[in-house]
Amino acid sequence: MNNSRVYRASTFAPVNIAVIKYWGKRDAKLNLPTNSSLSVTLSQDHLRAHTTASCAASFDSDTLKLNGQQQDVSGSRIQSCLAELRRLRHAMEDADGSLPKLSDMKLHVVSENNFPTAAGLASSAAGFAALVRAIANLYELDASPTELSRIARQGSGSACRSLFGGYCAWDMGKAADGSDSVAYEVAPASHWPDMCALILVASADKKDVSSTAGMQQTVASSSLMEHRIKHVVPERMQEMEQAVRDRDFAAFADLTMRDSNNFHATCLDTCPPIFYMNDTSRAAVRVVEAINKAAGRPVCAYTFDAGPNAVVYHLASNRAAVAGVFKLILGGKPGWEGNQGATIGSTAAIPKGAEAAAGVLQAGVSRVILTAVGDGPRKTDQHLC
Amino acid sequence: MNNSRVYRASTFAPVNIAVIKYWGKRDAKLNLPTNSSLSVTLSQDHLRAHTTASCAASFDSDTLKLNGQQQDVSGSRIQSCLAELRRLRHAMEDADGSLPKLSDMKLHVVSENNFPTAAGLASSAAGFAALVRAIANLYELDASPTELSRIARQGSGSACRSLFGGYCAWDMGKAADGSDSVAYEVAPASHWPDMCALILVASADKKDVSSTAGMQQTVASSSLMEHRIKHVVPERMQEMEQAVRDRDFAAFADLTMRDSNNFHATCLDTCPPIFYMNDTSRAAVRVVEAINKAAGRPVCAYTFDAGPNAVVYHLASNRAAVAGVFKLILGGKPGWEGNQGATIGSTAAIPKGAEAAAGVLQAGVSRVILTAVGDGPRKTDQHLC
Repeated sequence: MNNSRVYRASTFAPVNIAVIKYWGKRDAKLNLPTNSSLSVTLSQDHLRAHTTASCAASFDSDTLKLNGQQQDVSGSRIQSCLAELRRLRHAMEDADGSLPKLSDMKLHVVSENNFPTAAGLASSAAGFAALVRAIANLYELDASPTELSRIARQGSGSACRSLFGGYCAWDMGKAADGSDSVAYEVAPASHWPDMCALILVASADKKDVSSTAGMQQTVASSSLMEHRIKHVVPERMQEMEQAVRDRDFAAFADLTMRDSNNFHATCLDTCPPIFYMNDTSRAAVRVVEAINKAAGRPVCAYTFDAGPNAVVYHLASNRAAVAGVFKLILGGKPGWEGNQGATIGSTAAIPKGAEAAAGVLQAGVSRVILTAVGDGPRKTDQHLC
Repeated sequence: MNNSRVYRASTFAPVNIAVIKYWGKRDAKLNLPTNSSLSVTLSQDHLRAHTTASCAASFDSDTLKLNGQQQDVSGSRIQSCLAELRRLRHAMEDADGSLPKLSDMKLHVVSENNFPTAAGLASSAAGFAALVRAIANLYELDASPTELSRIARQGSGSACRSLFGGYCAWDMGKAADGSDSVAYEVAPASHWPDMCALILVASADKKDVSSTAGMQQTVASSSLMEHRIKHVVPERMQEMEQAVRDRDFAAFADLTMRDSNNFHATCLDTCPPIFYMNDTSRAAVRVVEAINKAAGRPVCAYTFDAGPNAVVYHLASNRAAVAGVFKLILGGKPGWEGNQGATIGSTAAIPKGAEAAAGVLQAGVSRVILTAVGDGPRKTDQHLC
């Protein structure tokens, strides 16, 4: 065995933004959720993690460098992912003695996001999906995205959904060991390719409470959470899958907005209360409502993760009507440059009833990101080091 | 009968601020609520409605003047109250032929609040309680506050609780005709006289959605509301009554904050969502939490009605620790003048963790009101005209 040989593989992995939200774990160690969830994978042209995994007999220890900073790899989440991937590689090596013993080598993982980590843009989801996918590529594992999703889930729950493109669900599963708590494809991006997203990045302070801590406070103290888990989400999951299969934007929009609000309601019902939405977020809600009212039907839908940023889903056919309003209000902010933004014209007027909200939005949004539904992780020969 | 004789009676009536919230009607015509509620009546020294009811054979029509403006009296709410009071008077007149036939005369009602009507300070509760109490005085009705509460409830639901001082509950009742949906005294102010309230009046626009419209939207569309009604409130009502009976501030504070958050969570879960709390409200929450943390126990509790104003309950023994922090932050705002405010010294420092919230509060609060638990409606010889 050539001791100087470095094995290497790289991947890009996408961000996903849930439309039926994950909030709450029934098992914190295994990252098993209290309810199923469903998300749209966003294009890696705009938001992505880029990760290179290397191993060599000469490496002394496992390391992880994220955006140029060495990270602690002793945490149980990352250790679980590494151990599972090594176990799969080890089984391959046992079955075929000609394979190099990569599972015995230390790993060096280098990862970069093309967007700010702390912006509340699901960076940990993309990051853990990229880490698992890159090591799976390095190990040449014959594992399906669903099998890898079970591993990525242990790193960051919502990461399991970033192993797929398009429209992806995470089944909460029933097994105590988490073996059936995995992601699956509801529909590929090609099924409904005209789903666009406009992200309004709010100029906020660091988030109030981390989602890891926040969701467990909600599980422990919200009197409404159990009702959400048992009665609200199961029904909505079925309806949302159907909306995606039918390419029914009106149903998709209604469910998306209701579920975002329901999730933030359980945050508010937490003791002490958790606030992720702020006055800027609420202004975005009012502008979306005014656009839909002016259109006479739902042409856009807001959703908010554990932070104040609005993600506004809309179809390409309504891009002028939706993004045009936001360009009129926020045209002076960064994010409109480039092919997508340059082709959008501002609408003539702010829709009726949204005038005050437009002012709040101008004051509170720092940049916009124009993107759309996209595909799953992409293998690449661009290696980071 | 002397046709020129004008009969007249006047009363003051207090504001009440609920700690278990009323939100939702099961019968909109009769103002029958979906759940019971419990409130603290605030002192009429600071916040009150003042109402004079007159009648005379020479009066042409029923009229109502509120803060100098003639109001429409054709609405079903006020008509229900007038009809019920006249019916009671009529029965007295039937039983005793010597009584003047006041029930046949038109009524002139004049009312003034000593605080801004639109400030979200339960003005309609005080107003309808005063109207009913003044006419009951005029008619010399032998009706208990609970009997009158059944009438006031038809004017404005929470008005029924302003017919009592101290700690007052409104039993939702079961009867279809609303006969058992009445207020009762949990404890008089003298039972727990050291309950104080500091109101932070937020400089807000007109409220988002009226509470009358908003609560019915919540009933119709919130997936969490039914759980609140059936499971959350019934248990909390019992616990809150017990906390009042035991003068247990820690339990009172915990229940008060949880129920405010639970109510606002159902507002957020409404479709479209209703936002009454804003960034100023949330800053008040964080300051209260920081004060309690610094004290090592709950010494104050926030609650928010259908608007952004915080009402901060605390005991007189903790006034220095609680109001002192708010005076340090908001000492430049109106409301600290007068006996109560002048005696409060600012604390030396803002409690740890509340520094950012203090800045938001400074920017968003327009005035403060220092008050305390108080007694029920007071008859007065000061007549308005």
